[in-house]
Amino acid sequence: MSEDAKPRASDEELVQRFRNSKNRPRSSQTLGFDLLAINQDEQWVEIAFTATDDMLNPTGRVQGGFLCAMLDEALSIAGQVASGMTHIMSTLEQKTSFLAAAKPGRLVARGRVTRLGRTVVFLEGEIRDSDGKVCATATATALPVEYKRNKPA
Amino acid sequence: MSEDAKPRASDEELVQRFRNSKNRPRSSQTLGFDLLAINQDEQWVEIAFTATDDMLNPTGRVQGGFLCAMLDEALSIAGQVASGMTHIMSTLEQKTSFLAAAKPGRLVARGRVTRLGRTVVFLEGEIRDSDGKVCATATATALPVEYKRNKPA
Repeated sequence: MSEDAKPRASDEELVQRFRNSKNRPRSSQTLGFDLLAINQDEQWVEIAFTATDDMLNPTGRVQGGFLCAMLDEALSIAGQVASGMTHIMSTLEQKTSFLAAAKPGRLVARGRVTRLGRTVVFLEGEIRDSDGKVCATATATALPVEYKRNKPA
Repeated sequence: MSEDAKPRASDEELVQRFRNSKNRPRSSQTLGFDLLAINQDEQWVEIAFTATDDMLNPTGRVQGGFLCAMLDEALSIAGQVASGMTHIMSTLEQKTSFLAAAKPGRLVARGRVTRLGRTVVFLEGEIRDSDGKVCATATATALPVEYKRNKPA
């Protein structure tokens, strides 16, 4: 979906664009969104989140839905970046597998593009705790929606 | 999983037990958990949640992960109730379909038991906005875990 005519922003420029954004969505703020790395060639992004005490289930671990929310952000942004920053992802469905309990604190998610189609995008990723243990994996199907207000790099 | 030897609490008694609980999980508090109804014979529960501005994505709608979190609570409690309040549900995986955008405010989820096995429980449900429109549906697979501290009714 990217137009080859205009020069592509570098990975680092895109990271800074996300980090310096003044319009960070409320959901991202709530989840402690912190974009760490982007690799446009390999179509992945890496984002840190912070699981707070407000997200804990009765066993003191992160309620799975909040891991879904973090993964949704990582997968969606992987698709947005892979589109050349011309489209946002409207998630149609997400399947999340809860491999291990996550303690509150810093969690790092990686989102990847499985297939970038014109009308449908397939995404996948996982989220790890500070020991590198995978707590949850996800796959998602999304609809790319043109982002009219996007400014070219 | 319930033991027929002891008398079962009525649906209304169970609703009150949830509503009066002093140990409400933090995740439930964050999601504005408000248990509305339980039907033990039909194995479903109905729970209202409140989507706050803190859960909104860039389009001003509820980020899908928070709908996953609400559905996770509704499905898990449907399983817990169906077990005779002897087991909590450890969700292994959840697939959520996002049928329509959800605005902030009150949302009502219904969780149902598809199959209550001894080692695996299959769950399903949906979440509706104040107009009754289904915003998301979910299916989940869960592991029933005996709740040692459970007090019989």
